[in-house]
Amino acid sequence: MNQPFFENNGPLKLSDILTTLDITLPSNSTQKLINDIKDLVSADNNSISFFHSKKYKSYANITKASYCITTKNLSIELPKSCVPLIVKNVLISVAKITQKFYPTSVQDCFDDSVTFIEKTKFKSYVNYGKNVLVGKNVKIGKNCYIGHNTIIEKNVEIGDNCKIGSNTVIRNSLIKRNVTILDNCVIGKKGFGFFPNDTQNYRYPHIGIVIIDEYSEIGCGSTIDRGSMSNTIIGKNCFLDNQIHIAHNVNIGDNTIIAGQVGIAGSTKIGSNVKIGGQAGISGHLKIGNNVEIGGGSGVIKDIPDNKKVMGYPARNFRFFLKDSRIKNDS
Amino acid sequence: MNQPFFENNGPLKLSDILTTLDITLPSNSTQKLINDIKDLVSADNNSISFFHSKKYKSYANITKASYCITTKNLSIELPKSCVPLIVKNVLISVAKITQKFYPTSVQDCFDDSVTFIEKTKFKSYVNYGKNVLVGKNVKIGKNCYIGHNTIIEKNVEIGDNCKIGSNTVIRNSLIKRNVTILDNCVIGKKGFGFFPNDTQNYRYPHIGIVIIDEYSEIGCGSTIDRGSMSNTIIGKNCFLDNQIHIAHNVNIGDNTIIAGQVGIAGSTKIGSNVKIGGQAGISGHLKIGNNVEIGGGSGVIKDIPDNKKVMGYPARNFRFFLKDSRIKNDS
Amino acid sequence: MNQPFFENNGPLKLSDILTTLDITLPSNSTQKLINDIKDLVSADNNSISFFHSKKYKSYANITKASYCITTKNLSIELPKSCVPLIVKNVLISVAKITQKFYPTSVQDCFDDSVTFIEKTKFKSYVNYGKNVLVGKNVKIGKNCYIGHNTIIEKNVEIGDNCKIGSNTVIRNSLIKRNVTILDNCVIGKKGFGFFPNDTQNYRYPHIGIVIIDEYSEIGCGSTIDRGSMSNTIIGKNCFLDNQIHIAHNVNIGDNTIIAGQVGIAGSTKIGSNVKIGGQAGISGHLKIGNNVEIGGGSGVIKDIPDNKKVMGYPARNFRFFLKDSRIKNDS
Repeated sequence: MNQPFFENNGPLKLSDILTTLDITLPSNSTQKLINDIKDLVSADNNSISFFHSKKYKSYANITKASYCITTKNLSIELPKSCVPLIVKNVLISVAKITQKFYPTSVQDCFDDSVTFIEKTKFKSYVNYGKNVLVGKNVKIGKNCYIGHNTIIEKNVEIGDNCKIGSNTVIRNSLIKRNVTILDNCVIGKKGFGFFPNDTQNYRYPHIGIVIIDEYSEIGCGSTIDRGSMSNTIIGKNCFLDNQIHIAHNVNIGDNTIIAGQVGIAGSTKIGSNVKIGGQAGISGHLKIGNNVEIGGGSGVIKDIPDNKKVMGYPARNFRFFLKDSRIKNDS
Repeated sequence: MNQPFFENNGPLKLSDILTTLDITLPSNSTQKLINDIKDLVSADNNSISFFHSKKYKSYANITKASYCITTKNLSIELPKSCVPLIVKNVLISVAKITQKFYPTSVQDCFDDSVTFIEKTKFKSYVNYGKNVLVGKNVKIGKNCYIGHNTIIEKNVEIGDNCKIGSNTVIRNSLIKRNVTILDNCVIGKKGFGFFPNDTQNYRYPHIGIVIIDEYSEIGCGSTIDRGSMSNTIIGKNCFLDNQIHIAHNVNIGDNTIIAGQVGIAGSTKIGSNVKIGGQAGISGHLKIGNNVEIGGGSGVIKDIPDNKKVMGYPARNFRFFLKDSRIKNDS
Repeated sequence: MNQPFFENNGPLKLSDILTTLDITLPSNSTQKLINDIKDLVSADNNSISFFHSKKYKSYANITKASYCITTKNLSIELPKSCVPLIVKNVLISVAKITQKFYPTSVQDCFDDSVTFIEKTKFKSYVNYGKNVLVGKNVKIGKNCYIGHNTIIEKNVEIGDNCKIGSNTVIRNSLIKRNVTILDNCVIGKKGFGFFPNDTQNYRYPHIGIVIIDEYSEIGCGSTIDRGSMSNTIIGKNCFLDNQIHIAHNVNIGDNTIIAGQVGIAGSTKIGSNVKIGGQAGISGHLKIGNNVEIGGGSGVIKDIPDNKKVMGYPARNFRFFLKDSRIKNDS
């Protein structure tokens, strides 16, 4: 289960699900109850699904979904058991419907369930500063420290021996034991995922969480966004310096070291034992191997195999980068 | 009117205006009252003006200002009706005088007019977190949310349906309806404008504001500085990711999307429907056209016409950048 | 004295110092008291020292330390008066021992000595916002301003006429007179120094402080880490823009100007009157001369002599950088 913290608002009436979409249904369908929105493969006959690209045709042919958001052209691929719901833009419609099932996953409004930690059970065993707030559905292990003005919003689990700094906000996150998070961080915010649209972009729901594994450390002023449909994961014993940005769905392997002001774009996978120099940037949807070293300031725009050492923008073999730099050494 | 929020401290006595400058005036002038400091064109006979470069000679010739800060060489260009006030460094003198008219626009001291929101009229209709502070001259629309520890300092107007996160500071800003500002932002701080000077730089007054237009979103840990003599403007339906820095006087058109850790230097104008990749940097005083796409990590140091797609440092046509990168693909 | 703020926990029993290391000592040594851990030169016969590289052989030969952490191969260089303590990894062992002498220098747990400023002597003469916290061993000069939610942790000295913004955390720092620190900064946090190690990195103790000299200004959201064995120093009249990261042991000369989102890696020395453009990055352990200008977005990976103007990644003479850029001007 990828999203332990987001509650599904379903089942919902089909008519309620489709209100914001311009679709007319046979009146006998409107009372039908739908449990969830799922992809073509995992959908069952109580689910609504979506089909937006020919490359998923083979899945569409055999989907068990009762209803499917799709375009007119694609709809012919659906089985008879599945009622096509024709829309202009499938993904925006999916975002709208997912919002109905997971309404709290779209916006990151402040958590109004929080209360001062002194008024909670944590008072008796957590070491806390002034003005600490804790929301509902929070677990905190033994021997933890939580700094001043820090807000642990709802849906957070913190393991034993963790140290959380001051002025930090954490939500929708699983922090394992012996983790250190320093001051002024924001962990577990929704990712920067949305569909551009004139006059009002559609935000994509983010029902994943952030997982920070044991013995890792997150520097001051860093932001780690939670995943959309999967999770954002920082491995064991990873050390991140100050002002780092980790986007949604990023996965980082164990023992990785990331220097200050690095940014990693959405859905990129970083291996174990990787070293990333300060201010390096890594594009989205890439795969960086194990034991890779990325020089400070590099801009990585393609996959990097295991054990490589790269530098430059775009990042390439560091020896060639430095050789070219020597040729240009005209200063 | 560009600066609705900064009060002019004038009229001031000429003798008081000039105290920190090394100028001796005929004694009959010292009691003269001056209303404001203005440029050569908009100055009237109750204003003091300034003239620091030959390229403004034609304006100097016909200025209506009664007094003008200038150098000895330039002073011959002024009409007889205008008394030249000779100084070594015109712009530093102007900064000193502008400070006298707009003393609160120079430093960003914390606002001591704030009070806990529970003690204000906003208690009855705003959705607010713990420890929220609100200053004087603040307006907040219907159906707004303001997160924990957030400080709405004086001179802020927030439209309907806005969501402000936690640990955020906002001052001197006009936030239109349906705007989202996430956690740990600082909006409306004075810009990074000053005259370098041995032992003590002179800060330039910032009497502009920040305007964020409807349906826009500002990510966590971002900073948007207010303008100096004009405003910093974020258009409609712009989405900015985390840790972005927007300097003073920047203007951004509608529907623009900016990924994490981007920085835009002072006075640059960005068109509408622009896409800027993560960690890109844009120099000051540039004009970026509509529908431009700037690749992640790019460094833009010149204007870009409409509809171009650029990448690299310095940024250039993305096809050439990628072609050159392939040639160098030696890793 | 480099670290006025960190208290030495010594003297400690040798047996207690060595508990976490796999070393067996003759039983008559275990009760021996040790005052401090010092380098080979400054160690006296009440100190423990360390010797990890042949290049320090001549110092090892004449050290006055009674005990020395070293490897089997190097141990033959020590005088008879010095008992070698053989370990696999000298520096990790040193980190472990230094932690015992300076336990509070390793982790940056929130300061639980703080109290609301209203309950301190500062109430009578400091201008302070709501919810301001002040720790033990803090001095604040005349005419200072401290913004809302700001935390002045223990071991901070602030000179006259300083302005500290809101939501800022300061610890282990010496802030001289007339300094401005804006909102959401973290000053004096431990640096990003540690020894990588499977399953659990060893943090290096940071017993240096941050010194910010008079008339300097630090922009919003900036982080300045304290030094490890020496100090991090910002000179006089330096202006730093927003979202800047200054790593441990960095030294910056007077009158230097640094634009937004710049990062300077550990132990680099920057001269006086230097100008650094936005988003530039400077590698660690470099020496940047006086009057140097570094273009925005540059990546500096080698020393720069006085009076040079550089640009690019890697940074080089700006004229050549711009010339090459013109040749490539294919957009």
